[in-house]
Amino acid sequence: MRFSKGRVFLLRAPEGENLVNFVNELAKKKNIIVGSVSAIGSLRNPKIGYFEEKKGQYKVIELKGTYELVSLMGNISIKDGEPFAHIHVALGDSEGRLYGGHLVEGEVFVAEVFVQELLGEILERKPQENGLSLWDEEPL
Amino acid sequence: MRFSKGRVFLLRAPEGENLVNFVNELAKKKNIIVGSVSAIGSLRNPKIGYFEEKKGQYKVIELKGTYELVSLMGNISIKDGEPFAHIHVALGDSEGRLYGGHLVEGEVFVAEVFVQELLGEILERKPQENGLSLWDEEPL
Amino acid sequence: MRFSKGRVFLLRAPEGENLVNFVNELAKKKNIIVGSVSAIGSLRNPKIGYFEEKKGQYKVIELKGTYELVSLMGNISIKDGEPFAHIHVALGDSEGRLYGGHLVEGEVFVAEVFVQELLGEILERKPQENGLSLWDEEPL
Repeated sequence: MRFSKGRVFLLRAPEGENLVNFVNELAKKKNIIVGSVSAIGSLRNPKIGYFEEKKGQYKVIELKGTYELVSLMGNISIKDGEPFAHIHVALGDSEGRLYGGHLVEGEVFVAEVFVQELLGEILERKPQENGLSLWDEEPL
Repeated sequence: MRFSKGRVFLLRAPEGENLVNFVNELAKKKNIIVGSVSAIGSLRNPKIGYFEEKKGQYKVIELKGTYELVSLMGNISIKDGEPFAHIHVALGDSEGRLYGGHLVEGEVFVAEVFVQELLGEILERKPQENGLSLWDEEPL
Repeated sequence: MRFSKGRVFLLRAPEGENLVNFVNELAKKKNIIVGSVSAIGSLRNPKIGYFEEKKGQYKVIELKGTYELVSLMGNISIKDGEPFAHIHVALGDSEGRLYGGHLVEGEVFVAEVFVQELLGEILERKPQENGLSLWDEEPL
């Protein structure tokens, strides 16, 4: 789907916030219906998900301690009538090894968050047979 | 090189597609000459490349199974007269461990793809002595 | 903080440059006060940092050899009166394993760099009690 550019936000999320909640609340408060999101920083005790196709649900991996937030990439669209952020992260431990997946939750130590609003049609997540909520496919 | 912003696309690539082909075909069909691309999702049996400088070619690593597409970053420019996507990925397994490199191919389970077109001069990849096809360097 | 879009740069950094210096110098030379930065490519002998909260300083991890630059994400803002790039990277070895964290330095083998300038207020890093230089927090 094609969009035009809207507002741009670059900001530091407060320490102690759950980063997933923060991005969702930011989208709701600023009325961001569609957008892209990225961030770097550091997260405490992040929980990441790996989607198990056979079970149709996420396996949750709980990491303990503080991890560098090496990459955060995601998007904002509508789910259940509200703005919803889908976020994936790569996280680095004290030896520089990386872990990651779907971000379930993570407490902000530092988070520098970039959000690009997109204007145009509504992009909506709908429950699928596989257990995920996804946009309609767009064949070429 | 300096550009201005063009069209923006945010869309779900169809399940089963080779994601590298999909982005290349999208660029050709939409006539995106220069751009940036990012994505998150999940890929099946991805093949990733590590460029071996001494051999002047990619070593291909074949991963088996389904991996979270934790980050996809890349760009679109001209190679051999056609739009060409250069893409790197980070991929997470069921334990949250990450693997990655140059994306050679990967079957889409889920792929939410963001493309930003850039307008301006033509950015072209040219074969180099080291075995890669690269843009001209831009010293400061 | 809210911004509007400025100039966009997509370019190849010269081989042999320290990529952190290159982005900082690019920002200074082009007078980019605020922005986002991303890149893919390949780095030689990168040094990455993991911030040790208890010590209030980065532990530096020195990687030897050439690594795929799988993701580079960061931002540009003002620190000590000058444009300053804060950059995190994911790096892939010859087996496809990923390492990463805060990019301290890394010699460019290949670097395809995307910079988005942001126009608006000044975003400034200020020394914190925890040892980091950060922007003011922005509660919702």
